[in-house]
Amino acid sequence: MSSGPLLVIGGAEDKTGTRQVLARFAKLAGGASARIAVVATASSLGDEIIDAYREAFGAVGVSDIVAPRPRTRAEAADPAHVADIDGATGVFMTGGNQSTLSGVVTGTPFGAAIKAAHARGAVVGGTSAGASVQSEHMVAFGRPGATPKLRMAQMSAGLGLLPGLVIDQHFDQRNRYGRLLTLVSHAPHLLGMGVDEDTAAIITDTHLEVTGRGAVTLFDGRWMTSNVDTARGSSALLASGVILHSLPSGSCFDLEARVLLPGLGGRPDDLRETHAVRTGTLEHRIDVEGALGDQSRT
Amino acid sequence: MSSGPLLVIGGAEDKTGTRQVLARFAKLAGGASARIAVVATASSLGDEIIDAYREAFGAVGVSDIVAPRPRTRAEAADPAHVADIDGATGVFMTGGNQSTLSGVVTGTPFGAAIKAAHARGAVVGGTSAGASVQSEHMVAFGRPGATPKLRMAQMSAGLGLLPGLVIDQHFDQRNRYGRLLTLVSHAPHLLGMGVDEDTAAIITDTHLEVTGRGAVTLFDGRWMTSNVDTARGSSALLASGVILHSLPSGSCFDLEARVLLPGLGGRPDDLRETHAVRTGTLEHRIDVEGALGDQSRT
Repeated sequence: MSSGPLLVIGGAEDKTGTRQVLARFAKLAGGASARIAVVATASSLGDEIIDAYREAFGAVGVSDIVAPRPRTRAEAADPAHVADIDGATGVFMTGGNQSTLSGVVTGTPFGAAIKAAHARGAVVGGTSAGASVQSEHMVAFGRPGATPKLRMAQMSAGLGLLPGLVIDQHFDQRNRYGRLLTLVSHAPHLLGMGVDEDTAAIITDTHLEVTGRGAVTLFDGRWMTSNVDTARGSSALLASGVILHSLPSGSCFDLEARVLLPGLGGRPDDLRETHAVRTGTLEHRIDVEGALGDQSRT
Repeated sequence: MSSGPLLVIGGAEDKTGTRQVLARFAKLAGGASARIAVVATASSLGDEIIDAYREAFGAVGVSDIVAPRPRTRAEAADPAHVADIDGATGVFMTGGNQSTLSGVVTGTPFGAAIKAAHARGAVVGGTSAGASVQSEHMVAFGRPGATPKLRMAQMSAGLGLLPGLVIDQHFDQRNRYGRLLTLVSHAPHLLGMGVDEDTAAIITDTHLEVTGRGAVTLFDGRWMTSNVDTARGSSALLASGVILHSLPSGSCFDLEARVLLPGLGGRPDDLRETHAVRTGTLEHRIDVEGALGDQSRT
C-alpha cells in the first residue's frame, strides 16, 4: 500500500469559479465515489466555512462530506472524530490559525488518523494553515518582506507529513520571501516551499506537480552560506548561494534530486531533459557543462 | 588610471540621521576636498531636492556642491553642465523617473562626461532612478509581486556604466522580486541586482561591497531554466535553478566569479573562504563537494 498524494495549497483557492485546485483534490479523492473529511479546526468561522466547502466540493462532483472539528486536544481523542478520518478517501484541512490546528491535532489520535489516512493512500490536503501544518517544521508566524532577517519568523512543530520541507503560504500575496529564506538559513537541509494563493503543490512520494493560478517557490539551501550564528537583532541576514525555483502550473519537480522535471508544455522533450539536468546534482552539472559548451559552438 | 567606484543605492537613503550611505559616497569622493555634482534630472521636485543633498553632504563634510540639471537632450549638450561633471570628484544622481533620466543623459555629451568621470576614477553613484540608470539594460517600469510573470517588467537602455547587470531598487520595500526574476529569465547572462532602501552596492571593478540598512539581492541565472519563449499573457513564469544571494551590510562579492567573498564579520577566515568557494564555479564545487563529504564524516 503506497502513501497518498498531499496537496499543499497556498490559501484563497477558488471556490466558486473554475475551482481548479479543489477539482484536483476531489478527483484524487475518488471523484463521485469520494468521501471527504473537511477539518475546520484552524478556522475562527462557524459552520459557514464547512458549508462553503460542502458547496464547492459538491460543484466538482463530491457530495459525501463529513466535518469532524475537534477544538481541543481532548476532543481530538474522540473516537467519532477519528472514525470520520478513518472512513474518508480525502482529508481537507481549512485555513485559519496553524498554531491552533497543530496544537489540537499533533500528537493526538485525530492527528494519528490523518497520518494513517495518508499512509493508506488517501489524499490529504490543506490550504493556508492547513498547508503549513503538513510539514514537520512549521512556520508559526512571522513578518512580511523580501529581505531575510534573523528574528523574522518563528518555527514550530507540525503534523510531519512532509518531514524534509518547511512550507509557507499566501507567498506572493503577503510577500513572504524573506521569512522563508530566514528559516532555510537556519536549517539549510530543509527545502523551503512557498505556495501562492489559489495554487497547489501536489506531492506524491518525491514527485511534485504544481497546479493553479500562481507559482510554487522552492529554496534549496544545501550549498548556502549564512550568518545566522553570528547575526544580531533585526539586521538583514546573509543568505548566499541558495538555489531558487519558481514553478508555475504544470511544472514537475523531483524533491529527492531537487531538479526540475519535464512536464511544462511547450518545449521539445530533449531540451526539457537537458534543462532538468542543468539544475541538477553535481555529477549532472559536469555532463551538462560539456553539452552547453557544444551548443555555444554551433 | 583605473575606474572609480560606483554606488548603486536602493532609494530613501538616510539624509538626516547617521547618513551611512551618503557618508561613504562623500569619503570615496575625497572627503573635505571633494567636489560633488548632484544631478537632479530624474526628480520632479524643484531646487529643494538639491538643497536637501547640499545639507546632507555638508553634514558629512563636503561643502563644494555643484548642481548641473539638464532637462532636455539639448541642455545635456550645454558645455557648462558638462564642465560641472568634468570638474567633480563625485557625481550623484538623485531619484525620480529613470526614463526621464536615461532619456536626457544617455548618448549625450552630459552622459559621456559621467562615463568619463567614472573612467578617470571619480566616484559615480545614484539612488533609485539614479541607481537603475547605471546599468546597460535598465528596468523602465513594472509591477510588484514575488512571483515572476511574463509581462511584469519593461526593460530599456541605461547609461551602461554596469554592462553585465540589471538593477532594481526599493527592492524589499516595493516587493520587486518577481519583476527582477522575470528580467533575468529573459536575459540569463545578466546578473539581477535588487537593492533595498537606505542600502548601497559599492562596485569597484568586479568587487561588490554592501553597506547600509538592508540587503543587496543577486539573481545568478546562468544555469537557469525558464519558459519565457513559450509562456503567454500574465501567467506565472518558470524560473528554475536561479542562484540567489541576499547580502547584508558588510558582505563582499566577486561579480566576475559570482561568489561570496570573505568580509562579513564573525566567521573565521578559513571557513569564510570555504563558503565562498562553495557557492562558486563548477570546478570549485567539485573540490568543495569532497570537503563537505569529509566534514560530514567527522
